[in-house]
Amino acid sequence: MPLIVQKYGGSSVADAEKIKNVARRVAETKDKGNRVVVVVSAMGDTTDELIALARQIVRQPDERELDVLLSTGEIVSSTLLSMALNELGYKAISLSGVQAGIHTDSSYSRARILEVAPKRIVRELEQGNIVIVAGFQGISRDMDITTLGRGGSDTTAVALAAALKAKVCEIYTDVEGVFTADPRLVPEAQKLSEIGYEEMLELATYGAKVIHPRAMELGEVYNIPILVATSFSKAPGTLIHGGVSMEVRNKVRGIAHDVNVAKITVVGVPDRPGIAAALFEPLAQVNINVDTIVQNASINNITDLTFTVARSDLNKAMSIVEPVARFIGAKECVSDAALAKVSIIGTGMQNTPGYAAKMFRALYEEGINIQLITTSEIRITCIIAEDRVKDALRAIHKAFELEKV
Amino acid sequence: MPLIVQKYGGSSVADAEKIKNVARRVAETKDKGNRVVVVVSAMGDTTDELIALARQIVRQPDERELDVLLSTGEIVSSTLLSMALNELGYKAISLSGVQAGIHTDSSYSRARILEVAPKRIVRELEQGNIVIVAGFQGISRDMDITTLGRGGSDTTAVALAAALKAKVCEIYTDVEGVFTADPRLVPEAQKLSEIGYEEMLELATYGAKVIHPRAMELGEVYNIPILVATSFSKAPGTLIHGGVSMEVRNKVRGIAHDVNVAKITVVGVPDRPGIAAALFEPLAQVNINVDTIVQNASINNITDLTFTVARSDLNKAMSIVEPVARFIGAKECVSDAALAKVSIIGTGMQNTPGYAAKMFRALYEEGINIQLITTSEIRITCIIAEDRVKDALRAIHKAFELEKV
Repeated sequence: MPLIVQKYGGSSVADAEKIKNVARRVAETKDKGNRVVVVVSAMGDTTDELIALARQIVRQPDERELDVLLSTGEIVSSTLLSMALNELGYKAISLSGVQAGIHTDSSYSRARILEVAPKRIVRELEQGNIVIVAGFQGISRDMDITTLGRGGSDTTAVALAAALKAKVCEIYTDVEGVFTADPRLVPEAQKLSEIGYEEMLELATYGAKVIHPRAMELGEVYNIPILVATSFSKAPGTLIHGGVSMEVRNKVRGIAHDVNVAKITVVGVPDRPGIAAALFEPLAQVNINVDTIVQNASINNITDLTFTVARSDLNKAMSIVEPVARFIGAKECVSDAALAKVSIIGTGMQNTPGYAAKMFRALYEEGINIQLITTSEIRITCIIAEDRVKDALRAIHKAFELEKV
Repeated sequence: MPLIVQKYGGSSVADAEKIKNVARRVAETKDKGNRVVVVVSAMGDTTDELIALARQIVRQPDERELDVLLSTGEIVSSTLLSMALNELGYKAISLSGVQAGIHTDSSYSRARILEVAPKRIVRELEQGNIVIVAGFQGISRDMDITTLGRGGSDTTAVALAAALKAKVCEIYTDVEGVFTADPRLVPEAQKLSEIGYEEMLELATYGAKVIHPRAMELGEVYNIPILVATSFSKAPGTLIHGGVSMEVRNKVRGIAHDVNVAKITVVGVPDRPGIAAALFEPLAQVNINVDTIVQNASINNITDLTFTVARSDLNKAMSIVEPVARFIGAKECVSDAALAKVSIIGTGMQNTPGYAAKMFRALYEEGINIQLITTSEIRITCIIAEDRVKDALRAIHKAFELEKV
């Protein structure tokens, strides 16, 4: 009997009625002759509410305790979905991350999955149960609760799909699938019926919020087809898989954007070996991801070093970078928190000249200044002022005729 | 270093400010040179809110799932208290029932503790931590979450005190201690500075809500002194222990009452062996406690059988008793849900005649009809109409001069 893993996000289980709706969808999947494992997020804004509660007690909550606190959100929704399935006459059982065998490292609040040991899930499936797993959480070697970081429930779902050799991992959320650009900002954006892992990974990494990049990476490694669709209608979603033809007609597949961007410039850095390591190692140690790094050509052995971090990490990053900058003899550190990334993504882009030029011209004609540029094999990213994101997206979307996809 | 177990009830941890207040009290206890284990209930009305949420999904939630759902309430409060202690500069760690080693049977929603294996608690205490344990919950042999039933956090606290050989188990709640009667109904009620296990057990069983009877039983068996006091002031509480002199001046120590009482009368029962078993075994099987049982003298081998159950169990009990009553040839079943129990309690009462008479006279003079009477060695209970409880309590309190305690 084929096995399907489904994941329902917070907006899909935001209240009792929505949970009953999800139960009906799960039941239909079971009725079609599948074994079903369901991963759920916490209801609606529960996670944010729990964080706010912790902050009423202490400004910077202890990470171990915060993880235990947050893990309760997914446990609540998993039990409610199980009850709703019982009510429909289906055998179901909820399992916590621990019971589902999600073993992680001990990096509280951003734990990585080390191993999935789904013995209990397999046993419950054999007994005819629909298995509901609390997403986003695992257990460390010390038997302490960990959480996987934001978007971690996607990762739970794909990891379980891989461990259980599922036919497909279905990610249900409040959007209908993967679009050529965010349809809230670009009304003419089109839904893609399929997309390859690499393109989706870049889209997700560079701001398309439909699926967490970590989940995408796992999906690619284990070659798990991932369907992204909405739980609020029967609209077909977007299937992410490895079999998508490389020779697609339109080489730009989509435009991603991300407004959680801040820039730090270390001004007047002596240009000598070891400086980059001195600056970036301490950031890595506290798990701050440094994104785009640009170093100007040096004049008189003095250069400026610019890099971006998530806006939410800016204060922490500045508090680490400033003393290091002083120590290495830099002139000063300046930051700008009102930035955004806009990226075009498509396989084959690298082999076709003119895409970068077309993107830059579209921005130029809108009067949008490009602050930094970064590229990969299948992506070109421009960092611009946050308040021009919508204009930038629409201009680029038009330039590449994505409304005709 | 002496070990103290403290338990804080839902009203003591109802919001962030109250949790910070509890943290200060725990810190003071630590500062006095004690090792401290704290058991917490869920915040305020969390448990009721979670039950209401489950009932939005299904009228009668699956018990296994409900237990998992409810267990999150205590986990939330335990992490918040741990954070609050961190904020005050104290090392603290929260543990779930599983981590604290609370092993139970599999009777969901009313599990019994089979064993406490506090290895992890001991390790954390050795590392200088204040250990915060989520009350009310444990784990079954199948590694499923169980809950201990209402008031279960008291039981968690006393069980841990016994397993850890604590000096004292302190139960903090919203009342100042054990009173001669409920001070909300009897303004002249007096706080007792100490009371014996047996008397307290009867008081708790017959309605005094300060501590759960199961916790009292455990305390008595393991001889753990239990202090009942309020977390909202420094007022001294009531110490429950085994060393209280039996020859107390006033033999009635307190008056308990309970309004969660319903009566079922099976009318016209053939008086032959096996009838009582036929009626009560099916009730025991679904864990309905039958309290007072009265059988009238039979006339022509036909009798009436009356018994009481918790009001919350009445509908379930009637649905079980009615078919059995028909089967054994009884005439009909009638029930009354608007009843209450009023009990006087005191050791030595049995050896001193006149207490029952004095109680009955006090009720008679208030014009209160006694529906059923039941007694133990140290207790006399009258079942009366619920709307006369306050009058009954004040009349009995006055008759036994408890205001002079």
